Amino acid sequence: MSTILILGAGKSTSFLIDYLADTCAKKDRHLIVADLDLEAAKARLQSRPGTTAEFLDSIHDAKRRELISVADVVISMLPASMHPLVASDCLSLGKHFFSASYESSEMKALAPEIEQRGLFFLNECGLDPGIDHMSAMRIIHSAKARGEEIVSFKSYCGGLLAPDSEDNPWNYKFTWNPRNVVLAGVGTSCYIEKGDMKYVPYHRLFHRLEPVSISGFAAFEGYPNRDSLSYRAKYGLEDIPTMLRGTLRRVGYCRAWDVFVQLGMTDDSTQMELAQGATLKQFLNAFLPYHDQLSVEEKLAEAIPELDFPTFEKIQWLGFFEDRKLPKTHGTLAQILQAILEIDWELQPEDRDMIVMKHLFEILTAEGTKNITSTLVCLGDDAVRTAMAKTVGLPLAIAVDLFLDGKISITGLHIPTIPELYVPILLELERWGIRFEEQVWS
Amino acid sequence: MSTILILGAGKSTSFLIDYLADTCAKKDRHLIVADLDLEAAKARLQSRPGTTAEFLDSIHDAKRRELISVADVVISMLPASMHPLVASDCLSLGKHFFSASYESSEMKALAPEIEQRGLFFLNECGLDPGIDHMSAMRIIHSAKARGEEIVSFKSYCGGLLAPDSEDNPWNYKFTWNPRNVVLAGVGTSCYIEKGDMKYVPYHRLFHRLEPVSISGFAAFEGYPNRDSLSYRAKYGLEDIPTMLRGTLRRVGYCRAWDVFVQLGMTDDSTQMELAQGATLKQFLNAFLPYHDQLSVEEKLAEAIPELDFPTFEKIQWLGFFEDRKLPKTHGTLAQILQAILEIDWELQPEDRDMIVMKHLFEILTAEGTKNITSTLVCLGDDAVRTAMAKTVGLPLAIAVDLFLDGKISITGLHIPTIPELYVPILLELERWGIRFEEQVWS
Repeated sequence: MSTILILGAGKSTSFLIDYLADTCAKKDRHLIVADLDLEAAKARLQSRPGTTAEFLDSIHDAKRRELISVADVVISMLPASMHPLVASDCLSLGKHFFSASYESSEMKALAPEIEQRGLFFLNECGLDPGIDHMSAMRIIHSAKARGEEIVSFKSYCGGLLAPDSEDNPWNYKFTWNPRNVVLAGVGTSCYIEKGDMKYVPYHRLFHRLEPVSISGFAAFEGYPNRDSLSYRAKYGLEDIPTMLRGTLRRVGYCRAWDVFVQLGMTDDSTQMELAQGATLKQFLNAFLPYHDQLSVEEKLAEAIPELDFPTFEKIQWLGFFEDRKLPKTHGTLAQILQAILEIDWELQPEDRDMIVMKHLFEILTAEGTKNITSTLVCLGDDAVRTAMAKTVGLPLAIAVDLFLDGKISITGLHIPTIPELYVPILLELERWGIRFEEQVWS
Repeated sequence: MSTILILGAGKSTSFLIDYLADTCAKKDRHLIVADLDLEAAKARLQSRPGTTAEFLDSIHDAKRRELISVADVVISMLPASMHPLVASDCLSLGKHFFSASYESSEMKALAPEIEQRGLFFLNECGLDPGIDHMSAMRIIHSAKARGEEIVSFKSYCGGLLAPDSEDNPWNYKFTWNPRNVVLAGVGTSCYIEKGDMKYVPYHRLFHRLEPVSISGFAAFEGYPNRDSLSYRAKYGLEDIPTMLRGTLRRVGYCRAWDVFVQLGMTDDSTQMELAQGATLKQFLNAFLPYHDQLSVEEKLAEAIPELDFPTFEKIQWLGFFEDRKLPKTHGTLAQILQAILEIDWELQPEDRDMIVMKHLFEILTAEGTKNITSTLVCLGDDAVRTAMAKTVGLPLAIAVDLFLDGKISITGLHIPTIPELYVPILLELERWGIRFEEQVWS
């Protein structure tokens, strides 16, 4: 009998827990879900046979190690900063480790020891990173096997709303960690185009847009997502002339979000302390120069000359031109902005989210240039069983299930870029409706 | 007999060392100057009686503590990150400590213990911070003593070139740490104007300019310098409606520097690796979108619509439109930019620098509003005996001299905002020609 331990029962764990809980009876497994909120863990498990909910404050070393020591495999759904701690517990206690987060440098440092002890550690096995790797590598490996050369690979992904839930001017609500949305793109993003490396600072990022179309949907646009250059080595495309990974949004979102970026509202390193009862308009005014005559609206129009009506409408809809009270008056600039958005961009119970991923390849073949696009659209059921939870949780659940069934025989530290992992995972994902549509043309 | 230890004999120490070395013979003192470069320390001291040069790698704990243990007062001219280490040595060995750097939070944490042990620790006793505090507090205290209310205080400072050394289109060369010049203003700057707090993100900073005039000189302009709000408490002006501290540059500099900021070239957190032999033009191209027709110059003009001829000329003068080889091809974006500028903005032996500081006060008196400006212009002698070295080093030297003469009787952790410190220091600075010109009008 195998024991699976899932640390964390937060957002994005509904499908993961359901999938594995449902295997317990038929495969004689025990599933423990541990969270700071015991009731949340219980609600996810619904007293299914072979499952146990536990209370755990994960920073409490002794209790965490105690739980890990009774498990065979550990899945960390904790904040990414906790992963190195959990991974090193797993290493010292001889347990296998799974996560949907980026393989950090601390994790990489453990690689030789993981291998030595015959353990299996799998990271980046969620949506992005995760499904993006698997679906891309399937095409890359197959092109390489045919002796073809990939000359361009652009890949876009977005966590968005299903069209029938797009009921605000932004066509956006929070479907995952709001903090990550507010801080998306901070720093310099880089990619390579026709052999030229390109660096885009944060304050120009939301101008560097490309239109992306998905058949059957209104238009999307994508902006470069942080470091695309590092994916050349990850995907074995060291000499590719064009490689870009981007984030997808509905048309108009980036132009309006850029107003916050231009004003400086998304800085998470500067503290602000406003008076209790201060309004959104006063918050906005702090980012505009002093003027003894002009209104906040007039100063904004002067500060952002490209402000058009659709953009103005989005800012207005959030209440920035009213005497609406700020939900938070002390914190970093980004924290105050996030608190405003968390009210207006909250996913309602009946809302459905939507994951969109699109890969665009240009491939040189003996017959000439071939284009391949591979597109995934995945819809959520409601605000709990989201497409985000489905696409993040199922790959991880499937990987654990395959591993415990003895269908993964490798050891060491991995991400799912190898056929032994992505072939069976993608196959099972298709059974769940997570299926890429491919188009090929010359 | 007292022993003075100066840690570091780098740039900005010439006047400090000269002043204190010259007191050794007549006041029976011993001066030790310790540096990683023993020859540099010897050259500064010129074998004057009562002086010793020592080799010291300051990160070497035992040797550093050995030197500190023989001193009575220690002056740290090391990089600011070393100060907490030196200060805690001084605390445990019972030595007095002096620096021209900002009082860090680590330093503040030592305050109770410094007081308890009867030691004197003085920070922020150079130019800026230093002379700015002293000259401002003299006016602030005297207005308060007359029962007047200060309603506006703007203060600008710049390390520039003497007009006769302004022989490039930027009217600028490096007169102190180039890295600090390249990274100047990174983050969000904040100030208060007519009661409204204002936050300016880095990418808008070099647009938020105010003209500043100094009689007898061509025009200057100033941009907000990081956190002006914290100076309200420092100067006892908690309720002042307008307070801004700014950095001075020659007119046109900020507009051209902003091109680098807009392009993203000043980011110090992103690594770049260009081919050996890559040119400045290729470096510039990395910050411009790909285009199959347009030249780098044309793309730059498109990316920076406000690019005018004086700005273009400054960029061109640095060699960005030629096939000039980069002096550095690996490093952060900011490090590569710095390496380019270090060649073209190098202070030549015959060059003279210039320090300009201007305070502008608006004060409510019983008779109505009074304006006070207080202006310092200080010229360097040459590229070694710079105005920067004079204005950073002399306040510190004078403070140590006064302290060893028994003319400072306070203990604890201080910055020179109290009359017991600034009155005698400003008086002695005047003897050295560091003198503020005051203008008062209604």
